[in-house]
Amino acid sequence: MKTISSRDNAQYKEYKHLATSSQARRKAGLTLLDGVHLCQAWLDLRGLPEQCIVSETALKNPEVAEIVGKIEHQRAHCIAMPDALYNAISQVEHGVGVMFVVPTPERAVPDALAVSAVLLDNVQDPGNVGSILRSAAAAGIKQVFCSGGTAFCWSPKVLRAAMGAHFVLDIFENVDLAALMAKAKVPTLATSGYATKRLYEMDLRRPVAWVFGHEGQGVADDLLSLATQTVVIPHLGQVESLNVAACAAVCFFEQVRQNQS
Amino acid sequence: MKTISSRDNAQYKEYKHLATSSQARRKAGLTLLDGVHLCQAWLDLRGLPEQCIVSETALKNPEVAEIVGKIEHQRAHCIAMPDALYNAISQVEHGVGVMFVVPTPERAVPDALAVSAVLLDNVQDPGNVGSILRSAAAAGIKQVFCSGGTAFCWSPKVLRAAMGAHFVLDIFENVDLAALMAKAKVPTLATSGYATKRLYEMDLRRPVAWVFGHEGQGVADDLLSLATQTVVIPHLGQVESLNVAACAAVCFFEQVRQNQS
Repeated sequence: MKTISSRDNAQYKEYKHLATSSQARRKAGLTLLDGVHLCQAWLDLRGLPEQCIVSETALKNPEVAEIVGKIEHQRAHCIAMPDALYNAISQVEHGVGVMFVVPTPERAVPDALAVSAVLLDNVQDPGNVGSILRSAAAAGIKQVFCSGGTAFCWSPKVLRAAMGAHFVLDIFENVDLAALMAKAKVPTLATSGYATKRLYEMDLRRPVAWVFGHEGQGVADDLLSLATQTVVIPHLGQVESLNVAACAAVCFFEQVRQNQS
Repeated sequence: MKTISSRDNAQYKEYKHLATSSQARRKAGLTLLDGVHLCQAWLDLRGLPEQCIVSETALKNPEVAEIVGKIEHQRAHCIAMPDALYNAISQVEHGVGVMFVVPTPERAVPDALAVSAVLLDNVQDPGNVGSILRSAAAAGIKQVFCSGGTAFCWSPKVLRAAMGAHFVLDIFENVDLAALMAKAKVPTLATSGYATKRLYEMDLRRPVAWVFGHEGQGVADDLLSLATQTVVIPHLGQVESLNVAACAAVCFFEQVRQNQS
């Protein structure tokens, strides 16, 4: 295992850059997975990381030692560093002290929507995007397409909220959602508070593509008009709408329910 | 309208204290609602605030002017202050510049659970608590009971995430959930990844009390054993579970679906 002990180390500076700049992450095509859960999920679902960074204290943690053991056994790179250096690149408060450097997959957008999918139009909040990815994965959906304005999926906050869902999904970013919807081979269903068709009236026993929009403004008008159908989740209360991640969960699991019954 | 122009003003110091200390908010029985949406919802659903605080720039905003007009017409108190002073007590970045000081209702816990309700056991994240309150209100649920370890509902983050749901709900905090469940007159349903009864097999065409737990550990064992039934949301993916707020939304709207069909 290699050790870094100085803030002036060139590799350390690179990590710090990755940790603090989303532009640096995009440019390098790399991101950081922080914490035992995400690292373990990567090992289980995707294999070895490019690098594994551990704090000196974390080396004594049995869960971390197990992760390091697996990686070194396969001759991948582990880098240890003093806690102070580790904490300066970690974005998790009171974290355990283990981090993976992993590639952020760049995939070519499929020719046409042909399986169950999620389209995110300008969803801003990283916590919401992460929760939607997590619910989609739990509901067995495989593809996620994000507009340019949607929060960057491979940012630390989205990764943390999604709890490993990234590793079982095919995520496409900066996608022209209008073009994708125009040539879809499955029905595209956009949620809207103004729709008249209720979610529970839809036949969801087939692949569909769900379209969710901005936290305040909802799905953009051009996408609403391209959708096969706009649907509403019926509300009983005086409150105006659901959080977008709650709305997505309700839609995905209504689809699960119909397919199981 | 009164104007405060100095940071040394005693009333300003009180606002600052309320804005920065949850202990101060609890002690005073007051909280701050920041932004046009929350203030408007309070006016619509609860009436006048104790005070309304506006920044000088916000006075020129037509939505804010309308709120101030309504309040002054009814002789409630508006306080204007320079933007710099306002921003130092606001927790909303790039907010509009209007805030209400309102009482945080203290209610006696009902003798027994007798209507549809939500019980939150140690739910930590303010965003999750806010989203659950919002979904509950949208699903027509009226009562929410929180354990001591659950995020304080009247904190700015929870208020922001709930978008006004607080004002249509009866929220009880620091509640002994075990005692409440022991004498419930409606079925208590606790979600658990280890349950065998699927959500979709439950008859929800009657009032029920939902129990949700800590983001990592779930519902505490003593509460699971007190529950009338533990239920699971069936998953299709390799991902281990849903976010607690997503889980709550799925449960509440399955109840809505069954009651509408």
